[in-house]
Amino acid sequence: MKLFNRRSPLWACAALALSTPAFANDGYHLWLGEPRGEAASATVELAGDSPTLQIAADELRRNLPTLDRPVMLARASDPALAGLPIDTRALGTEGYRVQSATIGGKAVTLVTGATDTAILYGAFALLRHLNSGGDPAKIELASAPETKLRILNHWDNLDGVVERGYSGQSLWDWWVLPDFKDPRYADYARANASLGINGTVLNNVNAKSDSLTAPYIAKAAALADVFRPYGIKVYLSARFSAPIELGGLKTADPRDPAVAAWWKAKADEIYRAIPDFGGFLVKANSEGQPGPRDYGASHGDGANMLAAAVKPHGGIVMWRAFVYADTDPDDRAKQAYTEFKPLDGTFADNVLVQVKNGAIDFQPREPFHPLFGAMPKTPLIAEFQITKEYLGFATHLAYLGPMFEEVLDAQTGVRRGETVASVVTGKADRHTLSGMAGVANIGRDRDWSGGTFNQANWYVFGRLAWDPTLSSEEIAREWAAQTYGNDPVIIDTVVKMMMRSREAVVDYTGPLGLAHLFASGHHYGPGPWVSDLGRPEWNPVYYHRADKNGIGFDRTRTGSNAVAQYAPSIAKRYADPKTTPPEELLWFHHLPWDYKMPGGNTLWEELVRRYDRGVAEVAAMRAQWATLKPKIDAERWTKTDVFLGVQQREALWWRDASLAYWMSLNGLKLPAGSAAPQHSLEHYKQVRFAYPPGNPQ
Amino acid sequence: MKLFNRRSPLWACAALALSTPAFANDGYHLWLGEPRGEAASATVELAGDSPTLQIAADELRRNLPTLDRPVMLARASDPALAGLPIDTRALGTEGYRVQSATIGGKAVTLVTGATDTAILYGAFALLRHLNSGGDPAKIELASAPETKLRILNHWDNLDGVVERGYSGQSLWDWWVLPDFKDPRYADYARANASLGINGTVLNNVNAKSDSLTAPYIAKAAALADVFRPYGIKVYLSARFSAPIELGGLKTADPRDPAVAAWWKAKADEIYRAIPDFGGFLVKANSEGQPGPRDYGASHGDGANMLAAAVKPHGGIVMWRAFVYADTDPDDRAKQAYTEFKPLDGTFADNVLVQVKNGAIDFQPREPFHPLFGAMPKTPLIAEFQITKEYLGFATHLAYLGPMFEEVLDAQTGVRRGETVASVVTGKADRHTLSGMAGVANIGRDRDWSGGTFNQANWYVFGRLAWDPTLSSEEIAREWAAQTYGNDPVIIDTVVKMMMRSREAVVDYTGPLGLAHLFASGHHYGPGPWVSDLGRPEWNPVYYHRADKNGIGFDRTRTGSNAVAQYAPSIAKRYADPKTTPPEELLWFHHLPWDYKMPGGNTLWEELVRRYDRGVAEVAAMRAQWATLKPKIDAERWTKTDVFLGVQQREALWWRDASLAYWMSLNGLKLPAGSAAPQHSLEHYKQVRFAYPPGNPQ
Repeated sequence: MKLFNRRSPLWACAALALSTPAFANDGYHLWLGEPRGEAASATVELAGDSPTLQIAADELRRNLPTLDRPVMLARASDPALAGLPIDTRALGTEGYRVQSATIGGKAVTLVTGATDTAILYGAFALLRHLNSGGDPAKIELASAPETKLRILNHWDNLDGVVERGYSGQSLWDWWVLPDFKDPRYADYARANASLGINGTVLNNVNAKSDSLTAPYIAKAAALADVFRPYGIKVYLSARFSAPIELGGLKTADPRDPAVAAWWKAKADEIYRAIPDFGGFLVKANSEGQPGPRDYGASHGDGANMLAAAVKPHGGIVMWRAFVYADTDPDDRAKQAYTEFKPLDGTFADNVLVQVKNGAIDFQPREPFHPLFGAMPKTPLIAEFQITKEYLGFATHLAYLGPMFEEVLDAQTGVRRGETVASVVTGKADRHTLSGMAGVANIGRDRDWSGGTFNQANWYVFGRLAWDPTLSSEEIAREWAAQTYGNDPVIIDTVVKMMMRSREAVVDYTGPLGLAHLFASGHHYGPGPWVSDLGRPEWNPVYYHRADKNGIGFDRTRTGSNAVAQYAPSIAKRYADPKTTPPEELLWFHHLPWDYKMPGGNTLWEELVRRYDRGVAEVAAMRAQWATLKPKIDAERWTKTDVFLGVQQREALWWRDASLAYWMSLNGLKLPAGSAAPQHSLEHYKQVRFAYPPGNPQ
Repeated sequence: MKLFNRRSPLWACAALALSTPAFANDGYHLWLGEPRGEAASATVELAGDSPTLQIAADELRRNLPTLDRPVMLARASDPALAGLPIDTRALGTEGYRVQSATIGGKAVTLVTGATDTAILYGAFALLRHLNSGGDPAKIELASAPETKLRILNHWDNLDGVVERGYSGQSLWDWWVLPDFKDPRYADYARANASLGINGTVLNNVNAKSDSLTAPYIAKAAALADVFRPYGIKVYLSARFSAPIELGGLKTADPRDPAVAAWWKAKADEIYRAIPDFGGFLVKANSEGQPGPRDYGASHGDGANMLAAAVKPHGGIVMWRAFVYADTDPDDRAKQAYTEFKPLDGTFADNVLVQVKNGAIDFQPREPFHPLFGAMPKTPLIAEFQITKEYLGFATHLAYLGPMFEEVLDAQTGVRRGETVASVVTGKADRHTLSGMAGVANIGRDRDWSGGTFNQANWYVFGRLAWDPTLSSEEIAREWAAQTYGNDPVIIDTVVKMMMRSREAVVDYTGPLGLAHLFASGHHYGPGPWVSDLGRPEWNPVYYHRADKNGIGFDRTRTGSNAVAQYAPSIAKRYADPKTTPPEELLWFHHLPWDYKMPGGNTLWEELVRRYDRGVAEVAAMRAQWATLKPKIDAERWTKTDVFLGVQQREALWWRDASLAYWMSLNGLKLPAGSAAPQHSLEHYKQVRFAYPPGNPQ
């Protein structure tokens, strides 16, 4: 206890920081970091006093490293800026510019933009620049978002359970809203604003109509009041049958004038409480949700009816394309395209169709969804899953940046240079509306996302939604520096771990384009043998189609011909196993176990090699993390270390269970040097979890 | 921002504390307070180095105000203490003594006891003394617990939902246990140890047998490892039918040797993982739970069979007396006594019968349970509900100290001076086993209990479990000083609010001995009109029996004769409305609306007066709290202020709805000066909550 006997107040300060768990880093501050004590010197001047500008100033005062000049926050239209050589033309309403300037004879760092929200984004950009190693002497930042809607989708049920949530219950404490506004709501908004996220859908797409009742509208309005100065709009998932459940109508047929009138009145009611309400997200006729197809109406009829209700208030509708029917015997991967492609051009101008990154369901790897590029007349909002439903929940380390990037960078083949990103930004087809949606991994856990590395997925989603052409590795570097400190050893190690982590998960769960091999319901752990679920396309055997002779789903002309949904150049590449990338091989092709892979391995040998590689990668990540023990605070280091231990054990479980099953089908031996599974196939089939999280009953 | 420009490190420190939400008081530190920076001077010397002593030393270093001498922690048996005039005879294994002493020529403050846990309790007692205004120059503390078992009952389901929990989901993150031990578990143990709580039942009495499977035993063992150095044992609620569900047996009949053998093997398995496992808590044949009565065996047969299984390991069984059957037409208030009284003397010596404070179910006021005093051959553990199922959840301010005290101080009438407390401590009948159980109000909310004042109920339970003869007002003072700071204005105001708060809830929910008038299922808000529930004794109309002529439940000889379950002197007092305290009047008597009350009011006038008083009390509490705004940190002040606003609105709702209903029956007018209900009775009957917390479906 020597430290405590030093009488200098500075030592008392240090002792304060060192001696108590309260000051350990519990991850609450995310990438924004623990507030700096010495931020003292950041002098901030405001031109204006809106709540948004006050927030920007507070952020800078709290977290800005020492600068040699004051920071000035001013709108581009401020008279003080008139005549200065500051180019704000390309910034739009949300873009910012941060640069040195001399204003009124005084040298300042100017943060500017057309709106206060743009200035707030600029303040966060300045913090990001300086806290991730940017040169304080060279501050010249300018950026405008490439998408208009940057939105989190909360799959939060009104009872507090988060579907596919692994970080505690819903952040929204509906019971005490609207009276009590937890201070945490502002911290949530702050974190989102730091990334440029400008919208949040509060409730699950598997919606209850209660969310549209007066008490819940008042609760949502209280949240909207907290979020507003951070530039974040509130949206709601709408249950299509609400006119029946709440309105007492006999039908929810969108062509029925009484139904349209009910929604119009409901929208009016919402806008009275939330004047800047964003609009509705709808999951219709999918996995049991009601929708227009129940009445023989089309998705367009449904979307346009809702769009008309919010249109007078400036609202929008995001209509999900994630549909598939057990009554349709066709390949599940084809059904969204089949249903939506013909509707292109029929949607109102305030409707976006929300398309998942792949055609099945957020697998560790999927080829990009064939709807991207196929609906040029409709703005498409890309839906990514930030929460790791299929990638080991909160426990397994998997940085999703490379996965998001892989999809965004994919060439649609429709036009030269057209990528998914260019469709999503609306540039490909000159849409005004555009956006990216991310299924949130945020809950009431102290560290928000159930572990520090999960925070990186929230971060990378937000950054890519702002600009889908950013590099996921650069984003990882930014995140690591801000989260763990700007130490090159930490950053290099952490970024290396992150950049290989998602491929490791692919390798140990479903290499070579295999998909949907997960245990039933909760999707944690292997279940490639599952064949007894109610609908054929819910069973892993539907997806891998393995038997004694081979494995994989034939989606070429000899099979479901899903490849034909892609533009001809892409379809051609996927039609032939030789030109299909190995990573997507068994997604498109059913091949014999002894199929020769590039490099000379048989398919079976290559499959085993990749399972083994996945397991080895996790061991390597764990060893890398161990080297950082002296550099990272104990609380965050330990949690990740424990989780990596779990992942190491479970990667082996995945590999062993999967190989035991494949061997039970193909009768093959493992290649030399590859260890036999630890247990019998029967053992793995018996694994059960009593109360898996994120799986409401 | 002037503060920030002061360059002294001390100012930097202050700025750190003032400028950031992170350092706002979010209630996490409970009554233990924010760690003191200046604790520097607390020199602590240890004789020994057990984890428990280390914890004691760390607590003192963290939170002790400056003393003029070092603190020494040493066991009573330490040679250094030999020959000193320190009386440790009456301390037992858990009692402590803290006093000045000269050891080895050095003046120290000595903290001693027979065990390291006793020393830990002594360290917390020293902190409590000094942090609640005790004289640092006069330290002479000695205390030994009056009960052996001081236990929290967590009604936590394995899926994370806490039955009757209003402060977030279960603290136990079963999914990542046993791998990840949240640092919060140690903070939970620390808070409990500061009160002397020495046991915790991890899972709900409405138990699932999964809690007894190998994976969950390993998870419980991980928690036990964290809690052990804090002197806290782990217990489990046992589902009586587990031998069928887990063991594949055909029966759970306690007289079947195979059933007994299954439990013995299960106990052995648990003790291999948790050598100091405390034992089982059982809810049997109550509200749908399985039990020995399913097989015609008695509660004694069931309890003794389980007791035999844990006996070789030193374990105990707590068997709940909370039983009532819809097949029994007798007054529900009588049924536990009827069932258990005849079993007195039949229980094994490691069984305690757990008896709720009253005969119905944790109402805002109930007369003490007639089983206290009626089972002299059986140790009875008293069960109190810390969580406010019937007192406004986490939102309404109700300090339960006076309620606990009222019950503990009640004379049983069996012997002169025999109180419920003397039964509970085992003194009345010279039992070795004794205890108090509290249904926890702890969840994963940052402030643990959903609001600062709810923390006081955890606190007062622990302090009274240690010594049931303590004054609830003194405990309130202690708590207030430690929680909000040792400022007489704060303490006086807060204690005044607390001491009247429970009576206010009684007044606006059920004055004059009315009970169980709550809305169905969730028990939030009024439902005195409810008469349609499946079992008669679940309906409020069963309890109030009001009609045009009168109100109240006749439990005298002309009614259910429940009074006869009390000792004759008590029974005699309750048999006559004139000698029954007004607070319990309608619990025991059905009286005409115009019955003359002491003081001259009619029963109706007095009832209305008390409803009005309850509403006025809440307004007064809110006004008192407002005066403390300048003295209390914004975060905690605001939450309580908002909650008091809710309570004020809802006290009026309770009063108006109740009066509207009574008037619909009795046709009477309100006394002059008493305002008419704001809405129609029909309005109040229509109130519904979509997703009330704490009410698992």
